[in-house]
Amino acid sequence: MTTPTNNAVEAKIRDFLAERIVAVCAKDVDALMAHHGPAVRTFDLVEPLQYVGVEAIRKRAEEWFSNFEGPIEYETRDVRVHADGGVAFCHGLHHVKGMSKDGTKIDMWWRHTECLRQIGDKWLIVHEHSSVPFDTASGKVSFELKP
Amino acid sequence: MTTPTNNAVEAKIRDFLAERIVAVCAKDVDALMAHHGPAVRTFDLVEPLQYVGVEAIRKRAEEWFSNFEGPIEYETRDVRVHADGGVAFCHGLHHVKGMSKDGTKIDMWWRHTECLRQIGDKWLIVHEHSSVPFDTASGKVSFELKP
Repeated sequence: MTTPTNNAVEAKIRDFLAERIVAVCAKDVDALMAHHGPAVRTFDLVEPLQYVGVEAIRKRAEEWFSNFEGPIEYETRDVRVHADGGVAFCHGLHHVKGMSKDGTKIDMWWRHTECLRQIGDKWLIVHEHSSVPFDTASGKVSFELKP
Repeated sequence: MTTPTNNAVEAKIRDFLAERIVAVCAKDVDALMAHHGPAVRTFDLVEPLQYVGVEAIRKRAEEWFSNFEGPIEYETRDVRVHADGGVAFCHGLHHVKGMSKDGTKIDMWWRHTECLRQIGDKWLIVHEHSSVPFDTASGKVSFELKP
């Protein structure tokens, strides 16, 4: 696209994404939730169709973290940021590695879209969408995909 | 959130979404693709992880439409639009009903996020994300969810 994104805003949003990665690796729910707006609507990897409101999303994050035994490794790839005025979005591929409490190795890539609004001098998440696609032939979740 | 979205822009983007529904119901690939920017990146319901560029997305739309025998019914629910400056996003629940070529009834809700930039007086899709969540207990796609 030809419209440039404001570089200062893009830098701020990339910092914000980096903070989220640190929060996940530290399993720090409070730090992870510091950027969510109160009316945030999340389309998560797992059902139901949507989580609405910061409390529902906090509960889901607690469940997610509690599923890991030991450390979480987290990386993002090919993140693109668009921002203008008080609206921004970014999208990229996310990857988590670790071990679940039942001893299963977790090593999964998924797609992540983050949508934000600027409230005062702070950027808050108003919508996020995480997912793994499925395979039409088998109807199964494509957990093994790599970029 | 407290920051208002520009109402005229919101109306334009809702018109645009309505046009897309008409395009899908008519299985009109050209009409559907009229709003995609050339470098669009799509996270689709089905694998791979991403489709990049308008040609890849056109091919995928052709495959999707060709899977239907007879009409497609399409509705959206609870679509929220945020726009400021030349950046906008919207998110909602989408529902399609129809019959596949192999005689299987299709009746599926999914989550849809659309991210746009204004280029001149036109809004173009630069990113879209469609997905169905999965069930953690079974590891299966949650095709049967309803809002």
